[in-house]
Amino acid sequence: MAVVLVTGASGFLGRHALTALRSGGHEVHGLSRRPPADDACIWHTADMLDADAVARLIRSLRPSHLLHLAWMMEHGRYWTSPENVRWVEATLHLARHFEAAGGRRFVGAGTCAEYTWDDAILGGRAIDEQRTPRAPDHFYGIAKNAAFELLAAYSRAVGLAFAWGRLFFPYGPDRPTMLIPEIVTALQDGRPALCTHGRQRRDFIHVSDAAAAFAAILDSGVSGAVNVGTGTATTIADVATRLGRLLGRPELIKLDARAARPGEPQCLVADVGRLRDEVGFVAKIALDEGLRATIASLSGTRDDHRNA
Amino acid sequence: MAVVLVTGASGFLGRHALTALRSGGHEVHGLSRRPPADDACIWHTADMLDADAVARLIRSLRPSHLLHLAWMMEHGRYWTSPENVRWVEATLHLARHFEAAGGRRFVGAGTCAEYTWDDAILGGRAIDEQRTPRAPDHFYGIAKNAAFELLAAYSRAVGLAFAWGRLFFPYGPDRPTMLIPEIVTALQDGRPALCTHGRQRRDFIHVSDAAAAFAAILDSGVSGAVNVGTGTATTIADVATRLGRLLGRPELIKLDARAARPGEPQCLVADVGRLRDEVGFVAKIALDEGLRATIASLSGTRDDHRNA
Repeated sequence: MAVVLVTGASGFLGRHALTALRSGGHEVHGLSRRPPADDACIWHTADMLDADAVARLIRSLRPSHLLHLAWMMEHGRYWTSPENVRWVEATLHLARHFEAAGGRRFVGAGTCAEYTWDDAILGGRAIDEQRTPRAPDHFYGIAKNAAFELLAAYSRAVGLAFAWGRLFFPYGPDRPTMLIPEIVTALQDGRPALCTHGRQRRDFIHVSDAAAAFAAILDSGVSGAVNVGTGTATTIADVATRLGRLLGRPELIKLDARAARPGEPQCLVADVGRLRDEVGFVAKIALDEGLRATIASLSGTRDDHRNA
Repeated sequence: MAVVLVTGASGFLGRHALTALRSGGHEVHGLSRRPPADDACIWHTADMLDADAVARLIRSLRPSHLLHLAWMMEHGRYWTSPENVRWVEATLHLARHFEAAGGRRFVGAGTCAEYTWDDAILGGRAIDEQRTPRAPDHFYGIAKNAAFELLAAYSRAVGLAFAWGRLFFPYGPDRPTMLIPEIVTALQDGRPALCTHGRQRRDFIHVSDAAAAFAAILDSGVSGAVNVGTGTATTIADVATRLGRLLGRPELIKLDARAARPGEPQCLVADVGRLRDEVGFVAKIALDEGLRATIASLSGTRDDHRNA
């Protein structure tokens, strides 16, 4: 049994990761600034940006495995914020103290934004860990890519097992500002969902599948970067149309109602060969099933708010 | 007049940078773990890896300009040491505190080891800041490249002026373990200098020229990476032969006396177009002159040791 410390444990991905790790039989510890009042894991309170507090926790807990999911994810800011640099510092500091305290395997959350998003280079092909150039455009991708390069070199130098899951487009109920919950909320309110042309193809993965993939990577012996996606490209128009149908309001889906962002890439889909063949993980939640769960969960949240 | 703080100020490059900056009319402060007892600048004592000490100094001094030369440079270790990651952390921390204290321009020391050293890709051409791929092989180059990527993104996000000098092959008297001082010392002792085939071409730049280039970059408005070299490729055999002649012991230069390291690149020379045209700096010290100065300085050092 591994002693696993999960950073960002109360976050979007973290909550689902705790479930996956516990069902794998591990002793699971969660780090959060504000741990929830539940027994999803053994909770520890600390701010990841408080270097001394993190060092103290690692020294006292001595985890064998680390699943590092924490990062600044404030909507509308994380993509370009200078705080990304603080998260690189915190990540390196975490890895050093983990290794010094006898840690054996470090798995971190990367992003598909580490790769180039240039359609001309991607050519509509699936993104491959080895062959696709990494040329991130924004600070978030630059920071994650630099963290990956540094952790990979550090791990080689000290003999630490290291893997890095590059997450594609997770969806689920907990990020109300993202595309899918936004459409659901509009339709539930009887408002039209104003979409772009919708021909952009993305690799959407349900957050609980994504979390289970990270747990599987932690349990595996795989080294280096592994894409975390489904391998299936779905157009945004298809997702919107499914949501219209599932919610019984297809007429509220308005394609071509607003302009796509300039330079928005056409196709971002993972080659999941490594995840499938080396980690042995395949996403299980079909898109309609994941969308239904998201709708149900958002309805519950909104009913709670209305009843409150 | 700028208030310039130089990190690594008592080091190989730092000592010469202080001279260049003072002759440029700046108020020059030097940071060092063990400042020398001289008035080459206003000295401050701190360990760059002591985050609190660095933050305190920056807050009290409030420099307008920062020339960040400090890095772990222990011979035989810096190329692969896991401590490289601590220097990335220290560098990011330094930049953040500098910016928070009103700092305006940050110039850091990069390295030609950030670029690919693959002969097949370089094809004997000069290394260009934009066109040559960055694909460092060793931890030192990986760490410097990651620091560059992060500092460039951070500076864009916060509006800090930022430049990065990628230093090629500095030589001078202060690194007795490097090629040129090693040959000089052997010949001064009457021992043969055992060289490889010597056909490798390198861009050797005298350390005082390199330091003057960094001072010029600091004074310029140039943004991003600038190669710091002479633009001239010299074979190691040529350097060795010159040293034999200058020291009057040509017969002690033994080419083909040992094997080159596997994968040692054939030609590493800077395209100095940016340094020349945008910074307005051209290296002044011809190779024979630099070699003579190195020989004279090493003779002095050795006489001092003998007399002590």
